[in-house]
Amino acid sequence: MSKFLIDKYRSLEAYTPGEQPKDMQYVKLNTNESPFPPSCGVIEKISSAEISKLNLYPDPECRELKNKIAQLYGFESDNVFVSNGSDEILSFSFMAFCSEEKGAIFPNISYGFYKVYGDLYAVDYKRAPLKEDFTIDVNDYLNVNRTVVIANPNAPTGLSLSVNDIEKIVSSNRDSVVLIDEAYVDFGGQTCLPLVKKYDNLLVVRTYSKSRSMAGARLGFAIGSKDLISDLDRIKYSTNPYNINRLTLLAGCAAIDDNDYYINRCSQIVEIREYSKKRLSQLGFEYLDSDSNFIFARSDKIGGEDYYKKLKENGVLVRHFSDEKINDFVRITVGTKEQMDTLFCVTEKILKEV
Amino acid sequence: MSKFLIDKYRSLEAYTPGEQPKDMQYVKLNTNESPFPPSCGVIEKISSAEISKLNLYPDPECRELKNKIAQLYGFESDNVFVSNGSDEILSFSFMAFCSEEKGAIFPNISYGFYKVYGDLYAVDYKRAPLKEDFTIDVNDYLNVNRTVVIANPNAPTGLSLSVNDIEKIVSSNRDSVVLIDEAYVDFGGQTCLPLVKKYDNLLVVRTYSKSRSMAGARLGFAIGSKDLISDLDRIKYSTNPYNINRLTLLAGCAAIDDNDYYINRCSQIVEIREYSKKRLSQLGFEYLDSDSNFIFARSDKIGGEDYYKKLKENGVLVRHFSDEKINDFVRITVGTKEQMDTLFCVTEKILKEV
Repeated sequence: MSKFLIDKYRSLEAYTPGEQPKDMQYVKLNTNESPFPPSCGVIEKISSAEISKLNLYPDPECRELKNKIAQLYGFESDNVFVSNGSDEILSFSFMAFCSEEKGAIFPNISYGFYKVYGDLYAVDYKRAPLKEDFTIDVNDYLNVNRTVVIANPNAPTGLSLSVNDIEKIVSSNRDSVVLIDEAYVDFGGQTCLPLVKKYDNLLVVRTYSKSRSMAGARLGFAIGSKDLISDLDRIKYSTNPYNINRLTLLAGCAAIDDNDYYINRCSQIVEIREYSKKRLSQLGFEYLDSDSNFIFARSDKIGGEDYYKKLKENGVLVRHFSDEKINDFVRITVGTKEQMDTLFCVTEKILKEV
Repeated sequence: MSKFLIDKYRSLEAYTPGEQPKDMQYVKLNTNESPFPPSCGVIEKISSAEISKLNLYPDPECRELKNKIAQLYGFESDNVFVSNGSDEILSFSFMAFCSEEKGAIFPNISYGFYKVYGDLYAVDYKRAPLKEDFTIDVNDYLNVNRTVVIANPNAPTGLSLSVNDIEKIVSSNRDSVVLIDEAYVDFGGQTCLPLVKKYDNLLVVRTYSKSRSMAGARLGFAIGSKDLISDLDRIKYSTNPYNINRLTLLAGCAAIDDNDYYINRCSQIVEIREYSKKRLSQLGFEYLDSDSNFIFARSDKIGGEDYYKKLKENGVLVRHFSDEKINDFVRITVGTKEQMDTLFCVTEKILKEV
């Protein structure tokens, strides 16, 4: 830290992304990436001819991509915001809709970045505890007069709220934005996108990083009322108007054109997830009934941190969180069947040794 | 604007990027892009094999790219920050180093985004007037106890300060960050990078968008003391840790490997600029003696806005600013010789008609 950093950021604890180690080739089940490559259309679209146009700025309005996303989900392009990964949308949303005066509320166990944004933007935020079974208590979010931020399915639990429950929250908070982070919804959750037509206070955030196999391209989008979208645009045009590069814009369009490919890949991941749940049961693990592309699991034979470390020694990366309420768990990304079988082999070996 | 947008952003005037019209094919001399494609190495590096790895997150630490940049300029990788375009670095720097208490100062005629960041982050900023000849008055920036932000060469004038003058500013403000935005330095300005080794309060910001033909890839970097860089990293890890996508990281490395290509392209642009200055003189234009890849020019036969509009009608885009101190000028990006000749032909025609 330099002596020049202004006071309000001096005690800020930044977000710690999952490890991306370079020392060896791991079976990488720690950052909820898709194990499958993007579709052929994406690979074809990023042609040498397009790369040689990198001297030109991208379209800051991202018109073609917004149109395609709007069409796919049945909205107008003014209902769509696109950005350099959904983290950027979350950051812009905390800026635009939360403050010391307008507080926020989110679950105490959820995507760790919500707390970081709350601290960064000096938001008066409240963290509502999950219930004993790790589900979200809807009652905590009714009539709160705060900006509500909920990941659905939630991370790292993988558990979902129903659209009915989301609607209760949205309709009881008409003077506050309700942001539903649907990063993992394509793996079996229910989307609340149809509610956007009914409620101007609902913002749904999506990412290409999980179900669309494009974590490396950095692309996220949000769907909401035109006014909410124009607020996000105002923040974007005041920070980084050319926030999405040319090749990612192309890839984002091609992926929409190839939507069936991604639907099939999601089905495959769901199949492998259900297979993995069975294998985990056979190995004596307990897990939450995930609707996402990861499984939050624990064993009574080995602690979460210990299991994480032993897996890493054996070339398998999963994610462990040190928060004491969940530190006996690990979060395992659903990879290919081969990757999961490696995980289970290594796990058998580890369990024999403890 | 929605009713949910928090008060402090309701009167914010966002930055207006140069037009990127889609209605027809223009001779595009309005956003200071390079007219030349990126080097072959860049095009080769973004292979199908790499595109098919887009399912994986990029390295958030950007180690390879930081190492290459550090090596090229003779620094350690801890002295380098990389980001999604240099606008993002400017945004992070205003966040990290400016506030209501720690004010900022920059020229009243300069990159328009400085004012936007000042407003966005509620900074107490001061805009120092340029001298009559459009140069920066160094005396305005000595012992100011404010964060100093200067584009060198300045935009849209193209005029430079000497490294000696920059050193005066940096050494007289040891308790404030001095940010020198060298977006256009590769076209004939003098870099102040060597001063970074001597002054821990100097931050030099660079972009791949101009001299490295990569506006469409979104890549910028900053070089400064390790502590300043760690402050920027703290903001990055609190907003968008994976801020640079995989393909841009690859392109950024390949461009450093092909450095000679870009040096040659810059020389070509400088030649075309000098040729263009002569042609402008012949057409009766007056212009500032630009060190950059654009020329700020005016004619006493036609007003700036009128000239801009007539050029656009004839398929040539340049940039006009409505600020009354400079509204008789247009800013003309230096394109290929062919593009410039088109501009001059069209200009002759326009001047005949007025």
